[in-house]
Amino acid sequence: MSRLATFADGVFAIAATLLILSVDGQVGDERIGGQLTHAWPSYVAYAVSFVTIGIMWMNHHTVMTQIGRVDRRFMLATIGLLMCIAFVPFPTRLLAEHIRDSSARDAALAYGFTMTATAVFFNAVWFYAARGGRLLREDADPRVVAGITRTYLPGAWIYLASTLVAFASSTASALLYLALAALYVFESSLFGGKASAD
Amino acid sequence: MSRLATFADGVFAIAATLLILSVDGQVGDERIGGQLTHAWPSYVAYAVSFVTIGIMWMNHHTVMTQIGRVDRRFMLATIGLLMCIAFVPFPTRLLAEHIRDSSARDAALAYGFTMTATAVFFNAVWFYAARGGRLLREDADPRVVAGITRTYLPGAWIYLASTLVAFASSTASALLYLALAALYVFESSLFGGKASAD
Amino acid sequence: MSRLATFADGVFAIAATLLILSVDGQVGDERIGGQLTHAWPSYVAYAVSFVTIGIMWMNHHTVMTQIGRVDRRFMLATIGLLMCIAFVPFPTRLLAEHIRDSSARDAALAYGFTMTATAVFFNAVWFYAARGGRLLREDADPRVVAGITRTYLPGAWIYLASTLVAFASSTASALLYLALAALYVFESSLFGGKASAD
Amino acid sequence: MSRLATFADGVFAIAATLLILSVDGQVGDERIGGQLTHAWPSYVAYAVSFVTIGIMWMNHHTVMTQIGRVDRRFMLATIGLLMCIAFVPFPTRLLAEHIRDSSARDAALAYGFTMTATAVFFNAVWFYAARGGRLLREDADPRVVAGITRTYLPGAWIYLASTLVAFASSTASALLYLALAALYVFESSLFGGKASAD
Repeated sequence: MSRLATFADGVFAIAATLLILSVDGQVGDERIGGQLTHAWPSYVAYAVSFVTIGIMWMNHHTVMTQIGRVDRRFMLATIGLLMCIAFVPFPTRLLAEHIRDSSARDAALAYGFTMTATAVFFNAVWFYAARGGRLLREDADPRVVAGITRTYLPGAWIYLASTLVAFASSTASALLYLALAALYVFESSLFGGKASAD
Repeated sequence: MSRLATFADGVFAIAATLLILSVDGQVGDERIGGQLTHAWPSYVAYAVSFVTIGIMWMNHHTVMTQIGRVDRRFMLATIGLLMCIAFVPFPTRLLAEHIRDSSARDAALAYGFTMTATAVFFNAVWFYAARGGRLLREDADPRVVAGITRTYLPGAWIYLASTLVAFASSTASALLYLALAALYVFESSLFGGKASAD
Repeated sequence: MSRLATFADGVFAIAATLLILSVDGQVGDERIGGQLTHAWPSYVAYAVSFVTIGIMWMNHHTVMTQIGRVDRRFMLATIGLLMCIAFVPFPTRLLAEHIRDSSARDAALAYGFTMTATAVFFNAVWFYAARGGRLLREDADPRVVAGITRTYLPGAWIYLASTLVAFASSTASALLYLALAALYVFESSLFGGKASAD
Repeated sequence: MSRLATFADGVFAIAATLLILSVDGQVGDERIGGQLTHAWPSYVAYAVSFVTIGIMWMNHHTVMTQIGRVDRRFMLATIGLLMCIAFVPFPTRLLAEHIRDSSARDAALAYGFTMTATAVFFNAVWFYAARGGRLLREDADPRVVAGITRTYLPGAWIYLASTLVAFASSTASALLYLALAALYVFESSLFGGKASAD
């Protein structure tokens, strides 16, 4: 189980760190002053995606504290989740580059469907482990388990709805992605003061 | 031994995460709508290679649960295996980009030979460790050991055969790679319900 | 807590290793002799940023030795810190490429603000954990705690001052960044002889 | 100490995995058949550098088994070593691309000086830890310690000599790098049969 966590940490960390390549690609070789200002959507997209991946890592961490054993199906579902996480840098670049041009809708859809798929896999990982307590620890905390179950289910639907908004307005869709990341940060800041040894 | 696992986890995780760079390179700067659709082989190749690397990581994990000690030859064989794993993103990009043009055969061969070499190194790692129980744990599970031995040997031959099919049809060869990944997923889903603490 | 350290180690390690991509981009395909010499600011920037990230990793390591438990707010602050660390390769490339042209000031500002933001997040991580001993270990070393508190506070102001120097002279600003890295190395070499098991 | 190992493992793993980007850059978008054959020096360089980094990782692993505690100077020396390791993908690309053109000497020198600097830092790490048993474990194995001391010292000189050969012939120099990697593999294969639990 610890190796699964190491592998997952690796993919989370690399996917988050690769996000900077998209920012980097936006600023060329000459007279960078104007480009640095003009590239502001890249910075926003970098921050939103980095924080979103970071929050997902935190959630994965919380899930794993309740898991007592793993099987190959669980590992496979985790690999599917990581496949989505590692995909995030690509639609992040698309959204940052195209939010101001005629491809904004396509970029917003690509970003949103990636996030929706990630949320779906998160649910698959969690409900496979939690159903009937299949892979939970003997001493799993019932409140934590109930809390995860309660917050994960709507996650995929909220991302799907935010994605579909792009058909009406890609800007509104992008603002919703931003609001979701801000909401997660706000919620963790407000209610995240309970310390644990792990 | 734990450091060997950490190093291996790192290479597996990075190689899998770097796969997204190939997808990213397929979609340029303007009017991405059409490109996003046209790049579908990139998504398939991304998913197939990510899942294949993920399954290989799972198999490496299973092998390491049966290993009780390591020596420099074993580490060297593992480095050879990781050298193949880290190579995978390159033929994956080739296959995704060229499956629809006149270079399809070359790309299918490059992908297939990489996978074959990976399977050969997997066998080298395993049989060096398992022959006469050289590096196995005292309490290695005989059924797991027999299971690994039984499934690894044909792996290299199956990939070699799928590779050689490219001389007749590169599409058939690519479909075989896809089928192999699907088979691994199917097999893990079907028989992977046995939980273990590690 | 150990998973937070693993995730952080991953981001530190990847951000440091990605720095080489900026050096690589400076040397093209033909007659590399002259380019290799002309690219010297890239080597300096690579070394300064690698060592700076390395020292930050050491400092994060020292902080974590005094931490006994974590909460979601602390993890969130750490994610913010890592977001800055992972950003470093981008302004490092800008500074290396433009220190000799008319964009030197923009590049020096980008580098300096990134370092200032990193130092601010370092303070946020530390003071959230240390205030009233909130997340410190029972047996935290009071001298180490006092030492971190004493050295972190001025760090952000020193980087901010070095950044603002760029409005007068970008070369002076860059030399200050270099001097700060050299100072950290010198200080660790001089006073860093106290061994610990962790 | 375990976090130092994790950080080091990360840099070793990423530097090794990034080597594939150089191979990837050699094969463009059309009619790849000829390019795949013509790029053979990239494959050789990939294999040589991957194996060399892998062997260095093994040596670092061996060193760390004898180390019982760390201090900031030791961490700093390790950061210097990792700075060289992370640099390797750059001269590897240069050597692979230019061994057949008029820049072969520059590329061979860049590769050789990087390897020499790496070997120098390896000596710094080791002799700082081993002098007077400063950071060694209480139960360090005297034969392993003596063995490391005996083999590390000549390493830097041998790489320096191989580098300087490039002034006479860059092909001879490249063949020496290849021979050194082959020698390490051969030596590990021949004498590396002693198992250890770590």
